Amino acid sequence: MLMTAADYRDSLRSYKPRVFLDGQAVSSVADEPRLLPGIAAIGITYDYAHRPEHSALMTARQSTSGKTVNRMLHIDETSADLLHKLEAVRLVCRTSGCAQRYLAHDALNGLLQATHALDATHGTDYGQRFLAYLHDVQDRDLTLGIAMTDAKGDRSRRAGQQANLDAYVHIKEHRRDGIVISGTKAIVTGAAYMHEFLVMPCRTHVPEDAAFAVCCAVPVDAPGITIVTRPAGRPGEAAAKFSARYGQATGVVVFEDVFVPHERVFLAGETVEGGLLTTSYATHHRHSCIAARAGFGDLLIGAGALMIEANGLDPDRHGHIREAMVELITITEGFYACGVAASVYCRKDPAGSVMPDPVFSNIGKLLLATKIYDMHRLAHYVSGGLIVALPGPDEDHNPETEASLSAVLGGRPDIPAAHRLEVSRLLEDLTVSHQAGWYSVISLHGGGSPEAMKREIWRNYPMGEKVALVEDLLDRGILDEGRRISKQPGRCCATGCATPEPITPAAEAAE
Amino acid sequence: MLMTAADYRDSLRSYKPRVFLDGQAVSSVADEPRLLPGIAAIGITYDYAHRPEHSALMTARQSTSGKTVNRMLHIDETSADLLHKLEAVRLVCRTSGCAQRYLAHDALNGLLQATHALDATHGTDYGQRFLAYLHDVQDRDLTLGIAMTDAKGDRSRRAGQQANLDAYVHIKEHRRDGIVISGTKAIVTGAAYMHEFLVMPCRTHVPEDAAFAVCCAVPVDAPGITIVTRPAGRPGEAAAKFSARYGQATGVVVFEDVFVPHERVFLAGETVEGGLLTTSYATHHRHSCIAARAGFGDLLIGAGALMIEANGLDPDRHGHIREAMVELITITEGFYACGVAASVYCRKDPAGSVMPDPVFSNIGKLLLATKIYDMHRLAHYVSGGLIVALPGPDEDHNPETEASLSAVLGGRPDIPAAHRLEVSRLLEDLTVSHQAGWYSVISLHGGGSPEAMKREIWRNYPMGEKVALVEDLLDRGILDEGRRISKQPGRCCATGCATPEPITPAAEAAE
Amino acid sequence: MLMTAADYRDSLRSYKPRVFLDGQAVSSVADEPRLLPGIAAIGITYDYAHRPEHSALMTARQSTSGKTVNRMLHIDETSADLLHKLEAVRLVCRTSGCAQRYLAHDALNGLLQATHALDATHGTDYGQRFLAYLHDVQDRDLTLGIAMTDAKGDRSRRAGQQANLDAYVHIKEHRRDGIVISGTKAIVTGAAYMHEFLVMPCRTHVPEDAAFAVCCAVPVDAPGITIVTRPAGRPGEAAAKFSARYGQATGVVVFEDVFVPHERVFLAGETVEGGLLTTSYATHHRHSCIAARAGFGDLLIGAGALMIEANGLDPDRHGHIREAMVELITITEGFYACGVAASVYCRKDPAGSVMPDPVFSNIGKLLLATKIYDMHRLAHYVSGGLIVALPGPDEDHNPETEASLSAVLGGRPDIPAAHRLEVSRLLEDLTVSHQAGWYSVISLHGGGSPEAMKREIWRNYPMGEKVALVEDLLDRGILDEGRRISKQPGRCCATGCATPEPITPAAEAAE
Amino acid sequence: MLMTAADYRDSLRSYKPRVFLDGQAVSSVADEPRLLPGIAAIGITYDYAHRPEHSALMTARQSTSGKTVNRMLHIDETSADLLHKLEAVRLVCRTSGCAQRYLAHDALNGLLQATHALDATHGTDYGQRFLAYLHDVQDRDLTLGIAMTDAKGDRSRRAGQQANLDAYVHIKEHRRDGIVISGTKAIVTGAAYMHEFLVMPCRTHVPEDAAFAVCCAVPVDAPGITIVTRPAGRPGEAAAKFSARYGQATGVVVFEDVFVPHERVFLAGETVEGGLLTTSYATHHRHSCIAARAGFGDLLIGAGALMIEANGLDPDRHGHIREAMVELITITEGFYACGVAASVYCRKDPAGSVMPDPVFSNIGKLLLATKIYDMHRLAHYVSGGLIVALPGPDEDHNPETEASLSAVLGGRPDIPAAHRLEVSRLLEDLTVSHQAGWYSVISLHGGGSPEAMKREIWRNYPMGEKVALVEDLLDRGILDEGRRISKQPGRCCATGCATPEPITPAAEAAE
Repeated sequence: MLMTAADYRDSLRSYKPRVFLDGQAVSSVADEPRLLPGIAAIGITYDYAHRPEHSALMTARQSTSGKTVNRMLHIDETSADLLHKLEAVRLVCRTSGCAQRYLAHDALNGLLQATHALDATHGTDYGQRFLAYLHDVQDRDLTLGIAMTDAKGDRSRRAGQQANLDAYVHIKEHRRDGIVISGTKAIVTGAAYMHEFLVMPCRTHVPEDAAFAVCCAVPVDAPGITIVTRPAGRPGEAAAKFSARYGQATGVVVFEDVFVPHERVFLAGETVEGGLLTTSYATHHRHSCIAARAGFGDLLIGAGALMIEANGLDPDRHGHIREAMVELITITEGFYACGVAASVYCRKDPAGSVMPDPVFSNIGKLLLATKIYDMHRLAHYVSGGLIVALPGPDEDHNPETEASLSAVLGGRPDIPAAHRLEVSRLLEDLTVSHQAGWYSVISLHGGGSPEAMKREIWRNYPMGEKVALVEDLLDRGILDEGRRISKQPGRCCATGCATPEPITPAAEAAE
Repeated sequence: MLMTAADYRDSLRSYKPRVFLDGQAVSSVADEPRLLPGIAAIGITYDYAHRPEHSALMTARQSTSGKTVNRMLHIDETSADLLHKLEAVRLVCRTSGCAQRYLAHDALNGLLQATHALDATHGTDYGQRFLAYLHDVQDRDLTLGIAMTDAKGDRSRRAGQQANLDAYVHIKEHRRDGIVISGTKAIVTGAAYMHEFLVMPCRTHVPEDAAFAVCCAVPVDAPGITIVTRPAGRPGEAAAKFSARYGQATGVVVFEDVFVPHERVFLAGETVEGGLLTTSYATHHRHSCIAARAGFGDLLIGAGALMIEANGLDPDRHGHIREAMVELITITEGFYACGVAASVYCRKDPAGSVMPDPVFSNIGKLLLATKIYDMHRLAHYVSGGLIVALPGPDEDHNPETEASLSAVLGGRPDIPAAHRLEVSRLLEDLTVSHQAGWYSVISLHGGGSPEAMKREIWRNYPMGEKVALVEDLLDRGILDEGRRISKQPGRCCATGCATPEPITPAAEAAE
Repeated sequence: MLMTAADYRDSLRSYKPRVFLDGQAVSSVADEPRLLPGIAAIGITYDYAHRPEHSALMTARQSTSGKTVNRMLHIDETSADLLHKLEAVRLVCRTSGCAQRYLAHDALNGLLQATHALDATHGTDYGQRFLAYLHDVQDRDLTLGIAMTDAKGDRSRRAGQQANLDAYVHIKEHRRDGIVISGTKAIVTGAAYMHEFLVMPCRTHVPEDAAFAVCCAVPVDAPGITIVTRPAGRPGEAAAKFSARYGQATGVVVFEDVFVPHERVFLAGETVEGGLLTTSYATHHRHSCIAARAGFGDLLIGAGALMIEANGLDPDRHGHIREAMVELITITEGFYACGVAASVYCRKDPAGSVMPDPVFSNIGKLLLATKIYDMHRLAHYVSGGLIVALPGPDEDHNPETEASLSAVLGGRPDIPAAHRLEVSRLLEDLTVSHQAGWYSVISLHGGGSPEAMKREIWRNYPMGEKVALVEDLLDRGILDEGRRISKQPGRCCATGCATPEPITPAAEAAE
Repeated sequence: MLMTAADYRDSLRSYKPRVFLDGQAVSSVADEPRLLPGIAAIGITYDYAHRPEHSALMTARQSTSGKTVNRMLHIDETSADLLHKLEAVRLVCRTSGCAQRYLAHDALNGLLQATHALDATHGTDYGQRFLAYLHDVQDRDLTLGIAMTDAKGDRSRRAGQQANLDAYVHIKEHRRDGIVISGTKAIVTGAAYMHEFLVMPCRTHVPEDAAFAVCCAVPVDAPGITIVTRPAGRPGEAAAKFSARYGQATGVVVFEDVFVPHERVFLAGETVEGGLLTTSYATHHRHSCIAARAGFGDLLIGAGALMIEANGLDPDRHGHIREAMVELITITEGFYACGVAASVYCRKDPAGSVMPDPVFSNIGKLLLATKIYDMHRLAHYVSGGLIVALPGPDEDHNPETEASLSAVLGGRPDIPAAHRLEVSRLLEDLTVSHQAGWYSVISLHGGGSPEAMKREIWRNYPMGEKVALVEDLLDRGILDEGRRISKQPGRCCATGCATPEPITPAAEAAE
């Protein structure tokens, strides 16, 4: 059953999580104004699945069940699936800023790979458990919070060496019917308005720290869970043209002796596969982040164009303005292209699914992480300095200043001053407000910090192939190319992978 | 008489400006909590002039009067003066974020040059008027608001072509005893808590637009002036570790039939010298901006180092963290160096004062304008992702979460969690809050947008000298260097200026 | 009939072009040592079509004839064709540096589009002529020189205004059986060792300059053609580990009253379609350039890794070395990804073929054009300073120095000094020699200068769609998403194109 | 006695060094055509000391002897000395590309500091020895080769652990009257045409490797020395508009049992002071490199402007061309400014001399090292693509092509085609030839690789001061600034140094 945004908001009422927001208890998440922008942003993923023009992209057929599910909960089996997921994430994020729910997709796909590997190595039945859980999540059309980033404590020490073991979530007790976990996840996207949490390890732990290699699912209102959240976006602020409507709240989630039954446990001490889960999830997630931030780029590009127009400037005549817009486009589409290439050169997993190519996925995420700052710079460049002196909306209806301000703060005469102010405030909201700053930080550190991406690029790059290429060159005489068998694989895919995955039509969903 | 910060705040009570803040009238600027951070930031320039360790730098002897004045109101006569001004601005801005008052310095120095040129060309007595005004400002130790950036209206048309002439401030009427001005200045730094405004043209006007070439001084409470301001910093916000204390408010200033007596008029229709005033002021101001933003860099560097420590990381062992800190230092000191070079290679003005070299000044401002975004990126890089999920200060004393949060949100065990949270919040305030976004925009557009700097660099660069160098090279035979008279000037100063200004000791003030 | 490299070289003997190289006439191009590296580089495209492991990629079925042709002469009809062309170009360029022949592909595909448009508008039969020519070229497996960049003369004047009309190639006379052309093409890749030239306009001409809108094919030895070439690579230089073997020569081609029969004329005065031909060719060509320079990146990455190893360094332990390698990878795969995305989001042409998406193609070319310099920087960074002092190969067998040099110029003891020297010389050849400098310039300006790419990005970007997105946002109330019909197209392809081309398997050719 | 360029060349005849160039023995360095460009470049430093317009800058008074010496051999005692040295190096390098001789200055200044420290710690008399040597070098107006960069062997092992000890120069034997040294210096600037070598350690050695901590002076023809050099520039190449005249040769210098008498030994086993010598030299040298590459920037800027003009373009109308020129200027003057600031904020040494501030010196060198590639890019950008197809000079007088080529290869009609070709070839020489590539590498690695600069910046930055600034801020209440004693030093110099060195006039030398 595919819910609508309204259904989703309603469904939150059946959970009773223990939530604190700015020091106050929240009695009903669905009715808390300071969380509504976050709920509205996720709502887009529900509503778009019902819109005729988007449903082909926003839904997909889950092969293991044969059912139609929301794209945000689907297991990818082809290059085209990855490309469609990429497009779907861009679509929902260009509308909502960040629709958040793609994290569920990323975790479910990573878990499929990890549970398959666990069973292959340990003869366990995690795979079956996970499949049952997956179908349940899809059937109920849930939104999952990914509880991954531990509080970490002293970064120079590993989990088991922390003075306070709760710096990382861990298994405190094994019971006959399940496990008991404790610890703190420091950054959980949308924590307060999720249905369930997927608890996952945030790094590869050493064998001595096996208790920290734990993955399981729990409802947000399981006994022992406390959520400390910030508001989502800028609710109730008149100047917040965008983020009063759509936003994102991150929360700290504290687990104190939370019981999890076996059927919801997907990793319990297997440190090697915990590492695999971490990197698989990260690869899917970085791929999704590319699309999310490209959607944000769409907003900036559109807003910048409107602001230029309102200022009375013409990019065709003002070369430096056009140059800045082209740079903004180049950045946005440049990292998006990495997401496309990662889809095309995906990796087939033994579990039957596909994973985006890790080299391209990490490059795309690395580029967006560092270039989000340039995107802000360029948006400021094209909009001019007005946004630093713009009177706030409370001034709009001040009878003592209204007339004179509206008379002089306009730009091009055929565009009302009010329109120019509105676009200015939108740009201020998107690039100057604390919400804008928040986007910078989450772009930089979300899904792993730049250093993590660089290590993954290095680890996954087919360096041997490149070295062989040069060694061939240095050994060979000048005219004997025809006589040698090359060491190179038969095709020249960017990632040196000898068996790229077939690409199926990107447009088929819409047909 | 050199005032203290307390004197300055008190002195504001003798003015009764018409000020609106978020739609409400402000009855006493000195007592308006939302403006206090701006008043406190300017206060630093007053108090430091009295501190034994800073007074030599923060004061100077005005040669035309023989009096000791605040460095922020002093006319520069040597390279050392420029270097000291640069150091003084960095000093007050590293403490206050932006001490704002250096704009007065920049305008007074630009005006000296312009009034001298006016008199030389037109046989007027603006120079004498200005000198009297200068001494008065210095004697009363005032803070001046620079009312320069016009509202501008349709950017594709010049001032006289605007549908609404009030898009630019202009002379509406010439009276026997003075002039009457009208129009709107859109971005005036600290508008509400100034003593007087210096009204200046923001561009070179064409002769037909002579009425727009106007420069004059008026008290902030002159009849006909309305100030619409935003709050300074983030007053009253508990999370604002820095900007609850120090901030900056920009305002829109509307002039409606404001009378200015002749002795306060320094330009009235002379468009050519209006252009000179604009570029002279801009050169002084861009030079000052370099130091201001270097002071902000000092804050970021210090805060970054504390955050790294609190996280338990060591730059000597974690190369990528050290790399980021070195990049932050390289950016900050790299543009500051341009300010130093502009001081060393200053230009002697016929008025008897000196102006920083425009090439170096514009390069320094151009670098800071675009690299402020990188500074934010690097500060985020070294601080880690915590700042996006950090519970707000209202959570600090919530008995339901206090214990568990403080137990798990710490980093290195020997540094209290509260300390880490405090540094995190400081970094959030400096780089994530709307105040941080505001710093980005004001760095990019304040003192002119990047394109303006590029044009000034191009206009002032000694291109002829470089061309002569290459032409010499192409004409000459291989061994005849000794036999030719070079076209090059006798020394190789970076700006090709044949008579660089003597540099006097930077440290002498402290001795 | 698919030729081999040897066949190709042989076939050049049947042409008698008038060629000058460094002031001397060249009697047999196929036997001129200074041109051999260029011939060898193109030879790769012939030989690889015969290698079992590459033939699926290097050949394709031409649908209009049903014949198997070399990929470098094939008309693309699907996304997969574009992707395979991209991979094929990378493959041949990673071996040869630059295999040059892809220019033929780019021009043939551009011409198909332009002749189809010509016929549709003018009722001409260019399309049929072209198809006959295409099949002839494919059947004879030719290599075509693209004579496009005119000498241009004074860049501030258009073609018809030049003092010397020969600054641009133009139709000098219309005869009953054909046309007579004159003028100079200033930069023709591989001019001396081509079979034929495709003469094309380098810009959109105004109607008054119709004589300059000319496209036709002529054999390299047509009467009236003079080719002034430079050597290809660094033939005969012992230190040139790579470019003594493979290289590229550009030439100036002077046309003096060259007769062209009608069946080889594909444009003759139609300025509008001349512009279409120019931009279509440019789009195909920029897409190919991406792959060519990614192949060069492969060489640098492999050589860098070998040099690091020979120096005794380990990227896993030396973070700054790994960082540089990752940056080199990020640049190379970052722009290659744009080529992949341009293939996926290709545009269907009315002629029945496909063209790569122009936004992604131009972004990819723009990135490689500016980042080739960074690629050199990074290659130098990882190789260390030895390459500036490395004794030349003539020193290798000097009995007076041989022993001591080989004893001390080694790095890691288990890698022979000779091996280290060889890799050093390879890096010097690839990044320090004039051949390396040549690569920089051709990367920057080849296929159009950066400003041309920026204009194309701007011209082709779906800006209206982004503006509609923001206008929607500003109009809509907060909770009414479900009630409106979005202005957005049904899917979120990066280029806003509502009907992306189906993508067929990249790997199918190899299966 | 100050020599002229002719005297200098002549003086080389009195030395008989054992030199090999491309495998051949060189009998007379002064008469070897392949070395003449290097000799001519150094000659500039001699001739300019005699030119009236340059002598004030190119000479200085050595305070310890009272004699007038060449600026390239002078010990700096004031900020002004450093600034004059900076200007002098830029002057000679803008003419010669790289005048090389400033390395002598850098080493002599570093040695003064190190020998003073040695004597202070060990009670030795190195200082006196050095002073005698210094005066001798100044009196004879010598040019010194700095033999510093060891061959190094396996970079993962220290000097004493190398399989072949000759990978580093070391003391092989202590004799009663001196020491015997052996080993190889891999990169010695101008090795073949020096008077003497100053042998110096290239890193801080551990105490066990004391034999490698050696500094001494030896004539280039001391028994046991073999020099293997490359040609200087591009001697004899007609296309080499610049580097046929001026160039630089680096050489490998092999020391085999070379005896050095005590009076020429300045360090012999003192590893700590060896490290001090290395970093002091490096600081002086990096400061000089800034000026050298700024001189190269002058050449590029001038050549670029001429090329733009010859192409018929006007930067005032073509914004993207102006933009590129401004970027070239910004890079050049941006790093030069760091050299100026390093002079202003110099450090007083106990030896009585001054050293440029290491933070600014290292930042300036770091910037030039990485941005030299951008300088090439920008020079290519403004010159257009012609340089890749330009026929070589052998074509110029080919009667078969001369007329048509000169007719069509011109640009603006009032500038002869020959002039345009000449400027094109100059740009090719400066940015495309192997000499250009060589400049890139030497800019990147010369004087230490970027990682070395970053470490020095980190090591020398006054981080404690910045941390104190922030701690002050976090401790203080909002209104108590006036009541606290700041932890900050009395002035705000960029490097946190409390006692910046007085700056004396930059122009005084010329007055």
